Amino acid sequence: MSKPTPISGFPEWLPAQRMIEQNVVEKIRSTFELYGFAPLETRAVEPMDQLLRKGETSKEVYVLRRLQEDPAAGGGDDALGLHFDLTVPFARFVLENSGKLQFPFRRYQIQKVWRGERPQEGRYREFLQADIDVVDRDTLPFHYDTEMPLVIGDAFRSLPIPQATILVNNRKVCEGFYRGLGLEDPDQVLRTVDKLDKIGPEKVAALLVETAGATDAQARACLRLAEISTGDASFVDAVRALGVSNALLDEGLEELVRVVDAAAEHAPGLIRAELKIARGLDYYTGTVYETQLRGYERFGSICSGGRYENLASAGNERFPGVGISIGVSRMLGLLFGHGALSVSRSVPTCVVVALPHEDLRGRCDGIARALRSRRISTEVAPSAAKFGKQIRFAERRGIPYVWFPGAGGEPDTIKDIRSGEQVEADAATWTPPAGDLLPEVSGAR
Amino acid sequence: MSKPTPISGFPEWLPAQRMIEQNVVEKIRSTFELYGFAPLETRAVEPMDQLLRKGETSKEVYVLRRLQEDPAAGGGDDALGLHFDLTVPFARFVLENSGKLQFPFRRYQIQKVWRGERPQEGRYREFLQADIDVVDRDTLPFHYDTEMPLVIGDAFRSLPIPQATILVNNRKVCEGFYRGLGLEDPDQVLRTVDKLDKIGPEKVAALLVETAGATDAQARACLRLAEISTGDASFVDAVRALGVSNALLDEGLEELVRVVDAAAEHAPGLIRAELKIARGLDYYTGTVYETQLRGYERFGSICSGGRYENLASAGNERFPGVGISIGVSRMLGLLFGHGALSVSRSVPTCVVVALPHEDLRGRCDGIARALRSRRISTEVAPSAAKFGKQIRFAERRGIPYVWFPGAGGEPDTIKDIRSGEQVEADAATWTPPAGDLLPEVSGAR
Repeated sequence: MSKPTPISGFPEWLPAQRMIEQNVVEKIRSTFELYGFAPLETRAVEPMDQLLRKGETSKEVYVLRRLQEDPAAGGGDDALGLHFDLTVPFARFVLENSGKLQFPFRRYQIQKVWRGERPQEGRYREFLQADIDVVDRDTLPFHYDTEMPLVIGDAFRSLPIPQATILVNNRKVCEGFYRGLGLEDPDQVLRTVDKLDKIGPEKVAALLVETAGATDAQARACLRLAEISTGDASFVDAVRALGVSNALLDEGLEELVRVVDAAAEHAPGLIRAELKIARGLDYYTGTVYETQLRGYERFGSICSGGRYENLASAGNERFPGVGISIGVSRMLGLLFGHGALSVSRSVPTCVVVALPHEDLRGRCDGIARALRSRRISTEVAPSAAKFGKQIRFAERRGIPYVWFPGAGGEPDTIKDIRSGEQVEADAATWTPPAGDLLPEVSGAR
Repeated sequence: MSKPTPISGFPEWLPAQRMIEQNVVEKIRSTFELYGFAPLETRAVEPMDQLLRKGETSKEVYVLRRLQEDPAAGGGDDALGLHFDLTVPFARFVLENSGKLQFPFRRYQIQKVWRGERPQEGRYREFLQADIDVVDRDTLPFHYDTEMPLVIGDAFRSLPIPQATILVNNRKVCEGFYRGLGLEDPDQVLRTVDKLDKIGPEKVAALLVETAGATDAQARACLRLAEISTGDASFVDAVRALGVSNALLDEGLEELVRVVDAAAEHAPGLIRAELKIARGLDYYTGTVYETQLRGYERFGSICSGGRYENLASAGNERFPGVGISIGVSRMLGLLFGHGALSVSRSVPTCVVVALPHEDLRGRCDGIARALRSRRISTEVAPSAAKFGKQIRFAERRGIPYVWFPGAGGEPDTIKDIRSGEQVEADAATWTPPAGDLLPEVSGAR
C-alpha cells in the first residue's frame, strides 16, 4: 500500500505529545476527584432524535450506518450518530438512570466528541473534552455556580500552562437590563451583542436598532453594559450607574457577585466579571463561564459552561444543572502549535539495561524485573550491539540511565547518560532521584 | 421527552462501575509503562479502504457520513469508518509516521473500538481494548514474543480478578506438522481444527478428510497434535512422539519452548502450551496467544494476540510486529455480570464537611480547601439540613467520614460513620488511614 496521510480535523499526537496529553488529563481528573466528582463515561453514540433536539447543531452530526445494513430498512428510529458534546449524553444518562443515582449528582466525563465542522487552528472534527456538572432534582442550590470556577482554577493551576482567566457573566443581568431598558426581545438583543468581537460596536448598535427594535439610546446602553469588565464586585456600581432597574437584573447581579467573590477569595486574579459574555447559542439560564489563557486570548475560550435550569426532563421529572467543559484538544493543539509544552523524554522508560551478550538476556531480564518490582520503568536493550549503540538507543529516547551488568563477578554499574557519571548499583535497592522516575512535563517560558 | 432506554451492545457503567473500570485501566496502563511502552491514541476513524483491506471483517464496520453532506458527492475516496480494532490504526500510524518514530517502537493504546456485530454476553458493539505491540523495521528479534506474556501476567496479577492462564501456540508448529504429515493446504487444516471446541473431534476429522484432502490417519494425527496441552516444555516430547519431522515444525517448537520457559520462570502457572489454539481468522505468522480467566473459561479468550511478520508495509518499508490485546469491556462485562468486582464507595469523596448553617458555608469551604490541598477528596454538604440527613448523604454514597465544624470556639471533630467513632480533628493536619484515602476495588470471593 502507499504511505498514508493525515485526515484534516482528526489530530493525532506523537507518543511524546500523547504523554503530555495523558499527564494533563491525569491532573485535571485528579482535581475533579478532589472535589468529589465521580467518573462517568457514556457510549459514543446517541439516537439521532436526541442529538437533533436543539436543532442548531444538526449540521455537525456524524451519522452511522453498518456497512452491511439493509438499505431498505433505512435509518428509521434506530439511527445513531456520534455525540457532538458531553452534555447531551449526560442529560440522557441522568434521565435513563435517575432511579439509580444519588442526587445532587456530581460527575466528570473526559471523552472524545465529534463534529463535522470545517477544521481550523484549534478546531477539530474529533477532540477531547473534560466536563464537570452537578445536577439535582427540581432545584439546584446556587452555591454550585460559585464552585465551578474554583475547580477549574485548581485544575489549570496544576498544569504547566499560561495563567487562565475565567470570564463570567449572568444571563439574568443581561435579560433584566434589556427588559429594564424597555426592550421586548432580550434574546435577539443578546444574540446581537454576542457579535461584538466580530463586527464591532457600531455595527452592533445599528443591528440593535434594525432587528431588536432598540432606539439609539437603548442600543448605546446595551453597549455600555457590554463594556463592563472588573476583577471584583465593582461591576455592580458600574451597572447601577447606567440607571436601569429591574428585579431580574437585581437577582442576576447578586448571583454574579457571589461567583466573583468566591473565586477572588479562592485565587486572586482567577476571575473577571465580563458583561459581554453571552454564549449565545446555548441553553444557559443564569451564570455563564468562558476561559482565556494569557497570551492566547485571540483564540477564544478553552473552557466554557454555565447554569441550565432544564438540563433534562421527562414527565414530571426535571433536572437543573450547572457545568463547565475544558476543551483539552483545543488547548493542547494551541499550546503544541506554539511549542509551549515539552516532556523530558519520549517514553516512560527510566532505565535501559545494556545487554553485553545475547546469552546474558536472562540475567538482564532479571535486573529489569527487580527494578520494575520497585515501580522503575525499565527496558532491556533490543540486541547485544556495541555499548555505544546501546547508549544511543537510550539517548535518542531521552532515557536518563543505562544499567551495565558487571562482568566476571564485578558489581553492576549505572550510568547517568546526561552527566556521564557512572556508579556501582544493586538492582534490589537502586532508586533514581524523584525527578527522574517519571517523564516530566513542563511549559516553555 | 420520554424516558430514554439503553441501546443493545453499547454498555454504559454506573459511576461505581466506571470507578472500577478506571482503576483497572490505570493498573494495566501502569504495568505497560513499567515495561517502557509509550502511550498512543489514534483517531477513531480510518478511511474505509484501510478498514476493508482484510476483507473478512467488512460486515462489522460502522460507516460515517455528515448529516448535511451532499449526497450527490457520495462517500468517494474520503469515506470514513470507525476502527474495529487497534491494530489496523496502529499499522497505519506506523507507516504514516515511520520517519518520526524510534524503532523498535513499543506502544500501548487503550481505546474504544466499534463492531456492528450481534450483541451477546461479553460481546459488544462498542468496547474498550488495551493493546501493546512492539514493531521494528525489516526484522524483529524473537525475544519480544517471550515478553508479551510477562507483561500481561503482571497486568492481570495487579488486578483483583480470578487467575489468568495464557494459552500459547505457534503457527509454525501447526503448519510444519501438517506439511510434515504430507498435507498440502495447512491453512485449510488450521481453519478446520479451529472448529474443535464448537463441533468436536469426530466432525473435525470428517471435515479434514472431506475438505483438506487428509487420510484418516493424517486426520487422527492432526487431532492428536491439537490435544497436546502442557504447562512446561514437555509438549516437545509429546509432539515428537507423533513421529512427524519437518524443519518449520522444529523452528516452531524451539520458539514455543522459549515463550513457555520464560513465562514459567517469571510466574509459575501463568502459561500453557495449548496446541489447538489457532486464532484462525487473523494474520499471525508465528506465536499466538489467548487468555482465560479461571472460572470463566467457557466465555473464551479475554486477551489475545500474536506475531505478524508483516504488520505494515509500504514500498520498500516493512514492519514486523508482535502484540497482544486485553478485552477490557469484555472482561469487566463478564465479571460485573457475575458480581465479581466491587468498590468501597460510589464516589471519590473521602470526607463530607457537614454544614451547620448556610451562613457558615464559607468556613466549611475553607475546611474542604485545607483537606483538598493535602489530596483528600472532600465535598461540603449540599444544604444545612439536619445532621442526620447530612450523615445519610455520606452513608448512601459510602463516604467514610463526616467532618463537623466546632461551634462557639470548640474544636472541629470528624466522625467515622462506619464505626460511629468521633474525634477532635484539625483540617490542617488530619489524615485518613491509607486504605480510606481512595475508593478500594476488590474482587468477590
